[in-house]
Amino acid sequence: MISKAFILEDLKKNMTQKRFAHTLGVMETAVALAKRFGVDEEKAELAAMVHDCAKDIPEVEQLNLVREFGILLDEISMVETALVHAPLGAALAKIKYGIEDPGILRAVKVHTTGDPKMTPLDKVIFLADYIEPGRNFPGVDRLRKVAFEDLDEAVIMACDSTIKYVIEGGRLLHPRMVEARNCLLLEKLKRGEKNGEDN
Amino acid sequence: MISKAFILEDLKKNMTQKRFAHTLGVMETAVALAKRFGVDEEKAELAAMVHDCAKDIPEVEQLNLVREFGILLDEISMVETALVHAPLGAALAKIKYGIEDPGILRAVKVHTTGDPKMTPLDKVIFLADYIEPGRNFPGVDRLRKVAFEDLDEAVIMACDSTIKYVIEGGRLLHPRMVEARNCLLLEKLKRGEKNGEDN
Repeated sequence: MISKAFILEDLKKNMTQKRFAHTLGVMETAVALAKRFGVDEEKAELAAMVHDCAKDIPEVEQLNLVREFGILLDEISMVETALVHAPLGAALAKIKYGIEDPGILRAVKVHTTGDPKMTPLDKVIFLADYIEPGRNFPGVDRLRKVAFEDLDEAVIMACDSTIKYVIEGGRLLHPRMVEARNCLLLEKLKRGEKNGEDN
Repeated sequence: MISKAFILEDLKKNMTQKRFAHTLGVMETAVALAKRFGVDEEKAELAAMVHDCAKDIPEVEQLNLVREFGILLDEISMVETALVHAPLGAALAKIKYGIEDPGILRAVKVHTTGDPKMTPLDKVIFLADYIEPGRNFPGVDRLRKVAFEDLDEAVIMACDSTIKYVIEGGRLLHPRMVEARNCLLLEKLKRGEKNGEDN
C-alpha cells in the first residue's frame, strides 16, 4: 500500500478544492467517531480519505472505468449516476492506491446508499460523510449530537433525511438505503428500543 | 363465484361502518378510473369491493388465517402487521367469495404496497383506495385531479406521500413500494417524460 501522505497529495491534485476540504472534514469526523465507538481509527481515517476518490472524475470517464474494471451497475445507478463514484471509488482505492483491506473497501463502496448489514466502520464513514464540519443542512447539529451518542440511530436519521430528499427531488430511490434503514430499525425493535404502535 | 350483492351484504356484516363506507367510496372511484383508462369496470368494481375484506379481522386471527392458508409473510409484514390484510384479503376473496380471476386477486394483494410491475387494474385499485371521496389529507384534491389525467404520475405521487409518511412515523418501509415507484419513474424516463438533472 502507498503511504497515506502520498494518497492525500494525489487526491489534492485530482480533486476540486471544495471536495478536498470535504475529504479532510470526513477524515477528522471519522476518526472522532471511530475513537468514540471503538472502531479502528487508522482504517477509519484511510477509508474517509479515499471515500470520494472517484467523485471528481467526469461522468463519461467514470462509466468507462466501470466497464474497464468489470463493475456491475444496477439499473438505479445507471440512471442516478451520482451513485457510481462509491463502487468505483472502492475499485480505484484498490487499484490506484493498493488498499487491500476488505473492510475499508466495503465502507467506501457503501458510503452513499448504506447496506443491509453495515459494519461499525461502514456506519462511521457513512455518517462522517453526512455530518463533517463543512455540511450545512436543517437538522445537521442534532444529527452530529446523536451520532456520538447512538451510531445506529444516527444512521437511521441520515437515511430518513436522504430518503425524503430523494423523494422530494422526484429521483429514483436506491432500495439498498431502504433495506439499510429497515435492517437497523428491525435490530432496534428486537432489542426492544423502539415500540411499534398499534396497527 | 358468489354474486356481488351477496358479497357486499356479507362485507357490510363483517366490517365497521366506517370501513364499509370507505369500501363503497373505493368502488365508486375505481369504476370511474377504470372507465377513464379503459380498464374492465366489472373487475375494478369487484376488486374494490373486496380489497379490505380482511382488514377488520382482529390481528391475532389474521395471523392465524395467514398460517392456515400457507401465506408466506416477509419480515417487514411480520412487524408492520397493517400490511397483512392485503395478501390475506386476496386469499379470502378466493376462498370465501369464490373469486378466481388472477388479475382481481393480484390487485387486492398489492393494494397497500404496490408492486414493481403494476397492471392498469392494480393502479386503479391502489389509487382508488388513496383518493376515494372519504379520504382527507393535504394534497388529496390535487392527487384526485392528476389521477384522472395520468395514472402513473398519480401512483408515483401516492407512493411519495406514503413513503414520507412512513419515514416520518419511524416505521419500516416496505421495499416493494420503493420498487413500484422506481419502476414507474424508470418507465417515464424511458418515454422521455422526465428529465434527470445533472449529477
